[in-house]
Amino acid sequence: MKLEKLTGDRFKERPADCSIDSHALMVRGGYIKQVGNGIYSSYTVLKRITRKIEEIIREEMDAIDGQEVLFPVAMPASLWQESGRYEGVGKELLRFNDRNDAPHLLGMTHEEAAVQLVREYGQTYAKYPFMIYQIQTKFRDEARPRAGLIRTREFTMKDAYSFHTSQEDLETYYEQAFQAYERIFARVGLPGVISVASDSGMMGGKISHEFMLLTPAGEDSIVVCKSCDFRANLEAAECIVDNGVAPEPVALTKVHTPGTKTIEDVCNFLKLPTDKSCKAVVYQKEQTGEYVVVFIRGDLDINETKLNNFMGEELITAEITAGCGLVVGFLGPVGLKNATILFDASLQGINNLCCGANEEDYHYTGMDIARDFGAAEYHDFAKAMDGGICPSCKKPTLTIARGIEVGNIFQLGTKYTAAMGMKFADEAGALHNPIMGCYGIGVGRLAASVCEELHDDYGPIWPIAIAPWQVHICCVRADDTEAKAFADGLYSQLRAAGLEVIYDDRLVSAGVMFSDADLLGVPVRVVVSPRNMKENCCEVATRNKSINEKIQLGDVEAHVKQLVAKLK
Amino acid sequence: MKLEKLTGDRFKERPADCSIDSHALMVRGGYIKQVGNGIYSSYTVLKRITRKIEEIIREEMDAIDGQEVLFPVAMPASLWQESGRYEGVGKELLRFNDRNDAPHLLGMTHEEAAVQLVREYGQTYAKYPFMIYQIQTKFRDEARPRAGLIRTREFTMKDAYSFHTSQEDLETYYEQAFQAYERIFARVGLPGVISVASDSGMMGGKISHEFMLLTPAGEDSIVVCKSCDFRANLEAAECIVDNGVAPEPVALTKVHTPGTKTIEDVCNFLKLPTDKSCKAVVYQKEQTGEYVVVFIRGDLDINETKLNNFMGEELITAEITAGCGLVVGFLGPVGLKNATILFDASLQGINNLCCGANEEDYHYTGMDIARDFGAAEYHDFAKAMDGGICPSCKKPTLTIARGIEVGNIFQLGTKYTAAMGMKFADEAGALHNPIMGCYGIGVGRLAASVCEELHDDYGPIWPIAIAPWQVHICCVRADDTEAKAFADGLYSQLRAAGLEVIYDDRLVSAGVMFSDADLLGVPVRVVVSPRNMKENCCEVATRNKSINEKIQLGDVEAHVKQLVAKLK
Repeated sequence: MKLEKLTGDRFKERPADCSIDSHALMVRGGYIKQVGNGIYSSYTVLKRITRKIEEIIREEMDAIDGQEVLFPVAMPASLWQESGRYEGVGKELLRFNDRNDAPHLLGMTHEEAAVQLVREYGQTYAKYPFMIYQIQTKFRDEARPRAGLIRTREFTMKDAYSFHTSQEDLETYYEQAFQAYERIFARVGLPGVISVASDSGMMGGKISHEFMLLTPAGEDSIVVCKSCDFRANLEAAECIVDNGVAPEPVALTKVHTPGTKTIEDVCNFLKLPTDKSCKAVVYQKEQTGEYVVVFIRGDLDINETKLNNFMGEELITAEITAGCGLVVGFLGPVGLKNATILFDASLQGINNLCCGANEEDYHYTGMDIARDFGAAEYHDFAKAMDGGICPSCKKPTLTIARGIEVGNIFQLGTKYTAAMGMKFADEAGALHNPIMGCYGIGVGRLAASVCEELHDDYGPIWPIAIAPWQVHICCVRADDTEAKAFADGLYSQLRAAGLEVIYDDRLVSAGVMFSDADLLGVPVRVVVSPRNMKENCCEVATRNKSINEKIQLGDVEAHVKQLVAKLK
Repeated sequence: MKLEKLTGDRFKERPADCSIDSHALMVRGGYIKQVGNGIYSSYTVLKRITRKIEEIIREEMDAIDGQEVLFPVAMPASLWQESGRYEGVGKELLRFNDRNDAPHLLGMTHEEAAVQLVREYGQTYAKYPFMIYQIQTKFRDEARPRAGLIRTREFTMKDAYSFHTSQEDLETYYEQAFQAYERIFARVGLPGVISVASDSGMMGGKISHEFMLLTPAGEDSIVVCKSCDFRANLEAAECIVDNGVAPEPVALTKVHTPGTKTIEDVCNFLKLPTDKSCKAVVYQKEQTGEYVVVFIRGDLDINETKLNNFMGEELITAEITAGCGLVVGFLGPVGLKNATILFDASLQGINNLCCGANEEDYHYTGMDIARDFGAAEYHDFAKAMDGGICPSCKKPTLTIARGIEVGNIFQLGTKYTAAMGMKFADEAGALHNPIMGCYGIGVGRLAASVCEELHDDYGPIWPIAIAPWQVHICCVRADDTEAKAFADGLYSQLRAAGLEVIYDDRLVSAGVMFSDADLLGVPVRVVVSPRNMKENCCEVATRNKSINEKIQLGDVEAHVKQLVAKLK
């Protein structure tokens, strides 16, 4: 098409509210327009890209025997009440009443809808395994939408659901889906996406993986081992500490530590390293208000995902009131009342700790949990750290990287089929709940991730597989009859050959033309200009600047076709 | 793919809750599953059909220079407040609050979103005309969803919005869109769809057309003239009456008409034809409760769409209370108080009418509006009738047909661009609001309409352009080695040739196999069976039964390819 008629404006200034490059470029290039908080419209340029991404996803889902279906965006609450998630999920689930005051919700994921669709179909083992998927709009009422299409409230997602008669069969299929995901990311231009073990969160099930594009712009923290292939989302990563051999125990001693409310203060005051202290972190149960105090080695932090998973509910930051019975700033295990007490595994096999004395301006030194508190259970609540010990190879070679989650796959088990009464008869006629897997990719986020990974200062560098067009013709000085005639002809020829061409024949400066072309990021650019015409040639270049050559006019058409074929 | 793995059940019994054939067949054939009231999931079979329909629509929209975009499903209320529709539209607009209690809505149409997207882009005349469209999920909180996919609450729709600098330019484009619509309906298998003048309803604007598939299963009433090409939606059709020459006036006389509360009762009692009576129909304004009494010739009915359009608001059925001051059952123009009084055009130039006397059990005869009531304005509020006078050719040859609205196009004028402050500068630099058109097609409803039009007792007869597959292979007795080997080979060959094939090699009876095939409605069917194999042939038939022949095994592949090519 002609660039002149392409809706959306392209401009130079980086918008102030764009924290990451892909967001800024998508606004500057006329890809997206914000409609509300975390809600965007897509212009034609982006729509062309996402359609190609969707087609790649579709091909790979069909290749692993997926059947495309369509679930509703709006669903009756009763469907999610069947699985227990209507009450279980927080405010990110958008609930509303329809005109008859019947409660409904906007789908943020479709496990319930998937089970509802095939509950009757899957009554006998012979129908298994099967997988259904959709590419559909979802809505998740995020508290903090950010970074353009990276975290929105409304988004297009491919979500797939597989059904199996055994865990082994699920695992076989899970591996196929895993490989299909690797192919998808490679095909859209992100071969470097890695998989990491992840926390299953609200989805249920045990084993799950996230596919991560490592980039400083990412909002996820990923633990990567430099010595082995261990990789996990920080939320899910086990924290291992080595406390060495415990020294000779000393006596529990109360010391006056005026005004030392943080662990750093008291360790400074007592001249102790923080890893010889026992830090208290206070939470509250949302429903009952009951306090939960987690003790952890002073140099470590709490991983709240692991804590919430252990508690089976989402704890909230504690609100400390005058009569709450907790001497905050001076909390310690010994003599602590009015709270559930938890110990992180980092405190196991360690003694002579400093900790609060549950008395204003007093701490203990020499504390030994087993001796002074009594029998304690230890659980893994700590955040893995840069330089921490790898749970796999046991070397202290963990690093923390940033990443964007571009996909995820989950082994769900029977959580949904059991709750919703889906059963199949095996060969002997006995009834079982099918075992499910689910597999998600956000389409818009994937487009933004490719942009984040593949761009320069001037715009995105789209891989040809998902580029909005394959060829961008710039006719510099379209008022020059000869140049215009050649460019017009080339535009017709290339389109007739089935190539996707955007043609800029506006009467604008070469500077404007080239900066707009950079923002559109089309892989092959042909520049026709009176100056080139004099040399009987035009310039053919790739957007990534690896190729930039002058081609004789008579060879341009063939050359461009070859170049496009080569880039594919 | 193999039918054995196709999700969704196929069965014989017509579900009790399906009022029309296409709904019953889509349930029986495993096309759709209801998730909630007016909310459906689509199985793979339907998804394959709707994808093809969407592709046809996309091609035709692109052919008239449409640019595909994507608007959000959920939008902030502020966007619709700009146009005034947030308050103006009734309960069919689903309103909800998000987690921050900010009011939002689910898009049932996207004029506001379209203007928001291109408001900055379209600031200069040189950018015009342009058209943007999307294919996206919509939600309309219908009071009475019905007939499967014909009237749902959630549906997929193609909606397009064009922008122009002059009414002439809009009209030129409107004609192009009109023709594109005709091509779309013809390509999906409905060349008989007609266009009718329609009421613009909540959309604003003056000129609009609906595209109607005439079928007894339709929920719309369409006025069609047998003598000329006049066609209109009943909602929009002008009603013309010929009252002939008024007879000699007689005196206004009050008569005792005990217990005659309906116009039929009183006309029977007085031995008068109903077209010599003046009937009262009572409404109320929703906001103020004020009564509105419409007088109309006794044999006619009110067209409430025309009445509401005249009033500029939606009137509601009157609630009659003891102290309301209206003697319902005996209402007449003479002496009527406590209500807005309206007269239908059918009462113009007519006298000697019987009408209520605004007194229990009394009517007047001999009433003459001008003489007894005074000066009156007459407006067209009446429903056009079978045998009525055509507004175009003036012959009494109107008929009322039923139809399904499969598409609509509207000339919107500047309603949205003016309300939302979208302006372009003309060549002289003067600012104007662009003129808009909008163009809608419901994808699921279109699929259901094709099914309604093209089916027999056993299932849909899909045109090859939108059929879920092109070829259906039935291997009767798949336990027969020879038959199975041939069918397997044919399945591979046809797929390798790029044909879309569904293959039934289940060990089920021929009866089950054929009734399932009928429900899938695939255009070309190949039946491989041991009996046919003995004759060295197999049967090749079309779903519409126009072709059914035995083909020598060696010729089957070529024959099927030719047949598919011919049907395309």
